[in-house]
Amino acid sequence: MDLNGNVLIAQGGGPTAVINQSLIGAVLEARRYPQVENIYGAIHGVEGIVNEELLDLTQETLENLERVAATSCAALRSTRVKPDEAYCAKIFQSLKAHNVRFFFYIGGNDSSDTVRIVNDYAAKEHYSFRAVHIPKTIDNDLVLNDHTPGYGSAARFVAQCFIGANLETRALPGVYIGVVMGRHAGFLAASSALARKMPDDGPHLIYLPERVFDLDKFSEDVLSVFNRYGRCVISVSEGISSADGEPVATKLQESVERDAHGNVQLAGGQLGDMLVDHIKKTTGISRVRADTFGYLQRSFIGCVSDTDSREAREVGAKAAHFAIANGQTGSITIRRTGDYETDYVLVDLEEIAAKTRLMPDEYIGPDHNDVTKAFIDYVRPLAGSDLPEAYSLKAPRVPKLLR
Amino acid sequence: MDLNGNVLIAQGGGPTAVINQSLIGAVLEARRYPQVENIYGAIHGVEGIVNEELLDLTQETLENLERVAATSCAALRSTRVKPDEAYCAKIFQSLKAHNVRFFFYIGGNDSSDTVRIVNDYAAKEHYSFRAVHIPKTIDNDLVLNDHTPGYGSAARFVAQCFIGANLETRALPGVYIGVVMGRHAGFLAASSALARKMPDDGPHLIYLPERVFDLDKFSEDVLSVFNRYGRCVISVSEGISSADGEPVATKLQESVERDAHGNVQLAGGQLGDMLVDHIKKTTGISRVRADTFGYLQRSFIGCVSDTDSREAREVGAKAAHFAIANGQTGSITIRRTGDYETDYVLVDLEEIAAKTRLMPDEYIGPDHNDVTKAFIDYVRPLAGSDLPEAYSLKAPRVPKLLR
Repeated sequence: MDLNGNVLIAQGGGPTAVINQSLIGAVLEARRYPQVENIYGAIHGVEGIVNEELLDLTQETLENLERVAATSCAALRSTRVKPDEAYCAKIFQSLKAHNVRFFFYIGGNDSSDTVRIVNDYAAKEHYSFRAVHIPKTIDNDLVLNDHTPGYGSAARFVAQCFIGANLETRALPGVYIGVVMGRHAGFLAASSALARKMPDDGPHLIYLPERVFDLDKFSEDVLSVFNRYGRCVISVSEGISSADGEPVATKLQESVERDAHGNVQLAGGQLGDMLVDHIKKTTGISRVRADTFGYLQRSFIGCVSDTDSREAREVGAKAAHFAIANGQTGSITIRRTGDYETDYVLVDLEEIAAKTRLMPDEYIGPDHNDVTKAFIDYVRPLAGSDLPEAYSLKAPRVPKLLR
Repeated sequence: MDLNGNVLIAQGGGPTAVINQSLIGAVLEARRYPQVENIYGAIHGVEGIVNEELLDLTQETLENLERVAATSCAALRSTRVKPDEAYCAKIFQSLKAHNVRFFFYIGGNDSSDTVRIVNDYAAKEHYSFRAVHIPKTIDNDLVLNDHTPGYGSAARFVAQCFIGANLETRALPGVYIGVVMGRHAGFLAASSALARKMPDDGPHLIYLPERVFDLDKFSEDVLSVFNRYGRCVISVSEGISSADGEPVATKLQESVERDAHGNVQLAGGQLGDMLVDHIKKTTGISRVRADTFGYLQRSFIGCVSDTDSREAREVGAKAAHFAIANGQTGSITIRRTGDYETDYVLVDLEEIAAKTRLMPDEYIGPDHNDVTKAFIDYVRPLAGSDLPEAYSLKAPRVPKLLR
């Protein structure tokens, strides 16, 4: 390929534990090609492109790049800007001014749409240009992907939370609710199932946004588990919705804002707190607790899936390879080719952009409060090797003497 | 010493990451002495003693004991029962019936008080008996201790949370509030300071229960940091109180319960949510988020300080040694003897029981919104080696061409 010029990389959307692996994967692969002059990193995603806030990554040492790769959250900083056509025109003007011929954007489906619009601009202006979207999202909701970089590490974090929650409720019996990220897709809440080892281990109930959430059914489910095990551990996706399609969290928010005359602005903890209240009132169980895992799920440092880390690196490298060596444009997707092995396939940007993948039916249990064995087989390799495990005492009881 | 008989061990109070290290430390040390016949573990603390729900730990393999040692949360299960004199009489009757001559209770200051009362009973009845309280609490609030087992690992978890939160707000600027456990003592909220590496790293503000919390001052502090760095990361102890001594969380709870006519029962997430609301309203900053770390701080599996783990093991072993080899009764305390080295001193139960240690003044900054260098020197070794670190890109800016 005879396209010569500069590379520009940017990161968009929420953080993940491995988003910098993709950045460094792309940078190091791009360095291999003589047709690449400079490698730029835009600060705060598309905002950095438009404002020409660029770092010259050509000057980073390999040592520092590797350390940054192992650090969570976008090293180039991120953005929530979702560019429209006019904004994309500005992006294109800046890319052109800096002789950027290869553009890589690491992000979710909104980011892939940005890449698509910018690429259309370049084509319209007959500007030789290759753009590749590099997938990233803990929500795991990109279509055509077996899974997305970032999800495996977040799944590992959630699993480690629930292994602990299971031990906590065994030590001090009660009901524990963990509220997990995921507004539309339940993949992350579902990953809590990895915490189970013994038949009575939690999470005993898993509620996903893909199924209708009913408060009465919820109480029945919890009471049934509690009567059986003397405790109940529950994974709830923040996006659970009632039959009318409205998220339970939103319903709550409106009603309490009204009650509180606007004095209490409702945020992260509300859904969990409300579910605790509901269970206490309807079941009479006294020790009921909720944690909302919140931002820790995507930013906590020191809980990375080795599989996720390796794949995030590879999708970055593949993006550079497809664009620079092969002269291609598109979005990288991860396909599962073995148990466990993956490969990376470039697809058209239109096929990914602004679409959302939900949990397939085969991963959701018939009672709508659990996942299937098929899902556990799917998610286990993604959370990586050496997931911490819990062990119990096995000693026999001592005969009673007094009563 | 010629006292022959059985050993009984129990665990009380909230979980920690290393509470089972103390259990296994005591079990393995007790196994060394021929005068020990059987080693029993009471299920659910003092409840298990009274109900004779005992495991015969003599029959556990070394392999399984080591695996249990590395598992968080009380393997013998725990209890919230705080025995009165009558309950302690029952405890004593059960211990006597099972010929328990050595009693070890792993817990906080309430547990040390239980050991004290039971020991008084034994003395009154002229029953030869040795009892040792083994310290444990993530709150780090036991007097006469440099620190307590469980605190170091919880501090490590909190530090890893804040390293991530710092990266998150750097990637997507805003205000982040992490609500940390600690009703009276601020040690755990203070440990967030370990997340700092670079001069602009968060947490930028740390609020402790040892100082009066004022909402107006809070807004001023946040705005000042935000104007300087474009973001603000805050560690708040759940026990922060206003000038009248009432916890901010309790105040809020009352007012919102009134507003909501009892429909919304307030739990874990409320303090964080309220502080978010307050900052949004008083500063006009739009992206303000709070996470309440909740039960994860004490039960999350896979985040253990090696220092904490080793010391928790040693206090267990020391308890068995003091009681069985030396025939002593008391509470084990940890003393710092070097930088970094510790030793273990047995003190009278009366000196520990039902007392609470707060953060000393020298660890709290003059503006009441930060900790001192002395505190960071104090806490750093406790969080263990190889605390994850964040790295940043160092590349220079690319000159602007368009504007």
